[in-house]
This record gives sequence, C-alpha cells and structure tokens, in this order.
Amino acid sequence: MICGRLIPDIISIYEITDVSDVCNEYTDLKRYVMISEIYLDNSATTRQYDEVTSLMAEVASRNYGNPSSLHTKGIEAERLITGARETIAEILGVQPSEIYFTSGGTESNNLAILGYLDANPRKGKHVITTRIEHPSVLEVFRHLESRGYSVDYLDVDEGGRIVPEQLEKKIRPDTALISIILVNNETGTIQDIKKISAIRDSVNRQAVIHADAVQAFGKMQISPSKSGIGLMSFSSHKIHGPKGIGALYVSKGIRINPLLYGGGQESLIRSGTENVPGIAGFGLAAKMTAVRIEENLQKAARLKQILVDGLAASDIVHRVNSPDDALPYIINISFRNVKAEVLLHHLEQRGVYVSTGSACSSHKKSRSHVLAAMNIDPALIDGAIRFSLSHMNTEEDIRLTLDALKDIIPVIDISKKRKSVRK
Amino acid sequence: MICGRLIPDIISIYEITDVSDVCNEYTDLKRYVMISEIYLDNSATTRQYDEVTSLMAEVASRNYGNPSSLHTKGIEAERLITGARETIAEILGVQPSEIYFTSGGTESNNLAILGYLDANPRKGKHVITTRIEHPSVLEVFRHLESRGYSVDYLDVDEGGRIVPEQLEKKIRPDTALISIILVNNETGTIQDIKKISAIRDSVNRQAVIHADAVQAFGKMQISPSKSGIGLMSFSSHKIHGPKGIGALYVSKGIRINPLLYGGGQESLIRSGTENVPGIAGFGLAAKMTAVRIEENLQKAARLKQILVDGLAASDIVHRVNSPDDALPYIINISFRNVKAEVLLHHLEQRGVYVSTGSACSSHKKSRSHVLAAMNIDPALIDGAIRFSLSHMNTEEDIRLTLDALKDIIPVIDISKKRKSVRK
Repeated sequence: MICGRLIPDIISIYEITDVSDVCNEYTDLKRYVMISEIYLDNSATTRQYDEVTSLMAEVASRNYGNPSSLHTKGIEAERLITGARETIAEILGVQPSEIYFTSGGTESNNLAILGYLDANPRKGKHVITTRIEHPSVLEVFRHLESRGYSVDYLDVDEGGRIVPEQLEKKIRPDTALISIILVNNETGTIQDIKKISAIRDSVNRQAVIHADAVQAFGKMQISPSKSGIGLMSFSSHKIHGPKGIGALYVSKGIRINPLLYGGGQESLIRSGTENVPGIAGFGLAAKMTAVRIEENLQKAARLKQILVDGLAASDIVHRVNSPDDALPYIINISFRNVKAEVLLHHLEQRGVYVSTGSACSSHKKSRSHVLAAMNIDPALIDGAIRFSLSHMNTEEDIRLTLDALKDIIPVIDISKKRKSVRK
Repeated sequence: MICGRLIPDIISIYEITDVSDVCNEYTDLKRYVMISEIYLDNSATTRQYDEVTSLMAEVASRNYGNPSSLHTKGIEAERLITGARETIAEILGVQPSEIYFTSGGTESNNLAILGYLDANPRKGKHVITTRIEHPSVLEVFRHLESRGYSVDYLDVDEGGRIVPEQLEKKIRPDTALISIILVNNETGTIQDIKKISAIRDSVNRQAVIHADAVQAFGKMQISPSKSGIGLMSFSSHKIHGPKGIGALYVSKGIRINPLLYGGGQESLIRSGTENVPGIAGFGLAAKMTAVRIEENLQKAARLKQILVDGLAASDIVHRVNSPDDALPYIINISFRNVKAEVLLHHLEQRGVYVSTGSACSSHKKSRSHVLAAMNIDPALIDGAIRFSLSHMNTEEDIRLTLDALKDIIPVIDISKKRKSVRK
C-alpha cells in the first residue's frame, strides 16, 4: 500500500534509486506491525488514532488558513481551535477560557512554573516540588535554584507517595508554588491531590498548586477546579493524539506571563501561529479517550493483573515497584540479576516494546531518580522495566509478553552466567 | 469523499445528529476549493503539500515511537529526525548539528534572541533591531527593554530598507545582538544581509547577527555561514509544510541557553518529545520547495508583474508599497479611498483570499507598523492589501483577482459614496 501510494512521491523527492529497498523495508515493517507488534511503551508515546490522522489530513488540506486571518479560511481555522478548546474544557469541567494550547507537556510544565513565578514576583521565592517529577519539571526547578529560588524537594515512601506531614512542614508564608506530578510517569503512582490541596489550604492558601497531569489525562477522572489546582499540564501524544501539542489549564484569576512573545495568540499567553491540525487532532483524541475512560481503566487493570499474576506464578525473581493502587496503565517491575537494557533488547526481538525507566531520560545512563527516591535497592533499579499500557493492548499481548519473559530471563540472568564462568 | 470516509467517525465521536448538514457543508467547501479558491495569503500560511500530508499520516501510524526510546520504534523515529535535519542543513549549506527543531518561527525567534542573550551576559546590554520586524521579534525586544536592555530600532527608507550608515553609527562595543528580518512579511523587502554583516565586522565583530528568515526560506538562496549570520529562524508552514514546526540555525561556536527545560532533546537546547511527523513533514516540504527555488521565483516574479501591470493599466488609484526589488512573493498595494478590510471581505466573496498587513497583527486594529516606518500616508496605509503568492498560484488566479478588483473598488470607494450623499 505504501509502495503503491506514498512512496513514488517520496522516492522522486529524496532521489531514492533502489525502489525495492524502500518497499521491502516498508512491507516488512507493515507485516511486523500487523503480525507481531506488542507496544507496551505507551507512557513514552502512543500510536495516533486513525481517526485523528484522517482529521488532521483533512484540516491540513482544506482548513489550512491562519486563524489570525480575517477571511473565511482564517475563521474556519479559528472554529476548529474553539471546538478543541471546548472539548478539553468540558472533559475537565472547566471554562474554555482557562485552557491554553502549547507545543506539548514540556512547554506546559515550563510555562506553568516559570510563567507563574514571573508574573507573581511578590508571592515569594520559595517553591516546593517532589523528588519524582518528570525532567520537564525537575530541570525547571534546578534552573530556579540558579535564579535564587529556595527549593524543597519532597521525599516519597516506598510506593512513591509523598508524605503529607512533610509537605505540611515545608509550606512557608513565602511559598509561591507547589508542583506535583499527579501520576508518576515511571511507576503510575497517584498522588492524593485533594489531600495535598487541603494541606496547602491549612497552611498558606496563597501557594498555587501546579499538577503535571500528562500521564493522568484521559486515564482517570480529573477535576482541577474541584481539587483546588491552579495550574495543570496536559499532553496530546500520550492519549493517541498528535505529537507537538499540549495544553495548560490556568484557573481563572491566576496570572501567568508568556515564555514566547509575538503575535499574541492564545490570549497573549502563547504567541505563534496555532498548529490547527494538531489542536484539532488533540481535541478529537481527547474526546475519543474521555468517552471510554472507565471502560479503558478497567481493561488496563485487567491487563496489569494478568501480568502481575503471571509473573507471581512463574520462577522469575522480580519485584513490582508500582504500588497496588497505582494507575494500572504503568507497571514498573524489577527483575533480579538482569540488566534492564539487555532485557529490553531481547523483548524487542520478540516484538515487545518496553522502556527502562522513562523514555525521556533513558538515553542518559544515570539510574532512575524516581526508583532511587523510593529507596529501591540499586541492583533492582538496574533491572527495572516499565510496561506501559493503552486500551489498544490486548490480553493476548500480555500473555505473549509473559511467554517472552519466561524464555528470555533465564538466558540473560547474570548470576547464572557467573556460575557458568566459575565452572 | 469526506462524507463517505472521514465523517462517519467524527459524527459518532462528536455526536452529530444531522449528517446531511455536515456533508453539505463539506461538499460545498470542497466544490468551493475545486472551483473558485484563489488563495493569495501565502505569507500568513500555506496549504500543506499532499505528499507531506501522506508522509505525516504514515509516520503517525507506523513510526510513532518516541525518539528517546531505546527500542527500534525509537530508533526509527530518531532516523526520521536525522533525515529532516540533514535535508535542511544541506539546503542551507550548514552542518546538521547547527540545526535545532522548534515549534515554529515564533519560538525560533524567541529562542535565538533570549537564548543567546541569556547565555552570553558579558557581551553587553545593547541590542539592535529594525522598526519593521515581525511581532515575534519586536515583542521580544520590547520585553528586553523592560529587562534593562538598551534597544535601538533602525529606521527604514520608503522601500523598507534599513540605512547602512545608521546601522554603522548604532553599533557599540557593548552591542550583543543585531536582529534583522531578511524578507519583510508585509512588503517582501529584502535586506542586504551581506552588507549588514560587513558593517558589523567593521565596527564590532563580537555582535552576533540574528536573521528572521521565515519569509525567505525556500523562496531565495540563503547561506547563513557565508553571510556572517550567527542565528537564523525558519518556519515550516510558510513553505507548504506542517504548522507547529520550525527550526533555528545556530552557528557552531555560538552558545545559546534553552527556553524550555526538561528531557534535554535537541542537544539540550529544546526539551520536549520531538514532533516526529511534523519534523519529517517539514524536511519533505523543505526539499520539495528547495529543488525548484529558481523556477518558483521566476513564476512569482511573472505573477507579480501581471498584477502590477494590470493595475497600472486600470483606472484603479493605487500605490505599490513593495519596492521593485522585493521578493516577488509578497506584493503590498494601497488602494486610495478604500478601507482594506472592506476590500478584503469583498474579495473573499469572489473566492480571493488576501490579507491586510500581516495576519499576525491583523486582529489588532492598529495601523501597520511596517508601512508607518516606511513613512506612507496613513490614509494609504488604511487601504493596504498584502497579496502573497505561492508557486501553487496561477496566472489565471491573478487575472481573476484583477477582474475582481476592477469590479469591487468602484463600489466601495469612499470618495464616491461621499459624493452620492451630497447629491
């Protein structure tokens, strides 16, 4: 299909001489996708919904106007943005005017934290976050330290949950912002955001809470306004929407300054010609995901149970690092005497795609800061794999993954290798 | 086609009850596109190449991995980014490692200016730009003023060109950065960047030049390294590529700091999961545009000539604001005794899409700062229309536009209306 339809154009443009190479590669890839792809790295990114792909193609071809243009093609584009904004606002139970589109979760997190502090210099120079944030929050706080902010990093328990008493002690009169990851991207641990909000209320109501909800959105019910959250970050590509699009919820009455200056789009908060196909695609993906949030959650819980039970019934020595009450989409498991990266590549040979720690830091060779904060034995951290699910996964996917693990782990077990060397 | 293929999914998701409404709307739209759409607003944004749309759909469906993932799906995605980076570097005659992907031209401009100054605080607190920049540069400089920078805004002559002697006088030992728009987005005026670079060299070689090349890229030959340019901004959606993607050239040896902190993508300069389909689409659009840059330029010159000659031969009282040596893709023309917005909407009724000033500032009711800087009579600024071309436009498009102008302008001429009131 690809060879017949798309590739001729690509071939001529990229001056590819050997057509059969390209076609074979793509045909192989397609067969691979059709037959054996078991993608369990959905917290890194997801496969875009086909409906979203179709919609984006239509928007790019037909409604390609610049929303700032005064003519119909501009107005058409503006309407698509309005529709997506209303969809996302409705899912969250907030006002459309409280939703700002960004280029993704990282920008949303940066804009929330830096934009809020920049706009509210008198709220204080003390900020609080946790030891288990995504790099797009953690690195912002490291940057804030270099800019003279005093930062407290909250510890977590062995399940990755922050300790309410510690938070209570840390909040000060000059605490401007508290940033908490709602669902951790490596373990699925859910923070009790209502309790966090209540503690904040009891100590310093002026401290604004930002929640990184990138891994939570579309996977559990979220109500920022009812939870006392001032700022909340979302990403599209974690819910089968397009890459390069995210959103930030800013509660009415909270002022933030832009990171990018220019044409004044997104009510002056985020300049730059709007990515209309991306925004429309995000809106559709959000809707498609939200309408079956409970159904999907039950499926994820069932798949998690099959994986956890299957390992428990096997000879594989392991430790489930995700707590029982974690969001079931993310299952972090350590395998003893196994190097996670070696296991990852062996699983890949079987068509199973997983992650070691989070994708965003997996190119760095350092140990997971999340598992370290949970006080997990370093040897176990080195053998930690993140299985992250989507409603697109099946029970068969998990059973095949279990089969693969049972075949692979005895082969790559370091302790067994050592024994054989000793012989 | 849309009704049969795409809409069923959309209808069910968005719970649309009356299918005929949607189908009629889209069928009308399609007929409109097929028969009568004359899109002369290509400097605001362009219609995406169909080949780019196909490629992006394939990437989103097949190569959907996160480039940071260690498995094949991550590597596939990484390769697509490498390919696009190499393509763009080759077009510019620079190293792939000098190209960084961003979310668009606005981010590129912001990152270049703010990122350079943040990384080089000892280079001085004086910066220079022109009075005719795009808002994504001009607003950054206004922000810099509030942060204690001393800013000089260069004047332009009646053709929109900066005056070399003024630049020479303004450069100081503490001038850190000079930001110049290579091709102006409202008039097409080209700045002589080599002369600007030579003047910089003669006064203060330490002052880095940033060129906003958003309207120039793909439309004229650009060689940042040979022109002495340190930083250069590009956008994808101005050359029939996807929205939400841009690039920044950073000459080897120039240090910039990031605006966004996180996973450290793009060599630590631009964190955030890469928009792989967008980047791949940008690469393809750049290649498709660059391979026929001269051919397209000749066509644009021919179309401009038809428009300018056609108006000269008519009774329409007008002034061509774009200089003769402007990039022919942009033709700014003032119509006397006409309100530009009224003309725009009348043209739209004839299927002709144009802009008043630039799209980015067209929602603001203020007069064009570019035409004002060119010292054009305010009454003429109020009647200024930007016709912006693409190689997709035809001679027929221009002839139909001329016909429309000849029909419309006598009807909307304010002076004639006044006369009739007096009778």
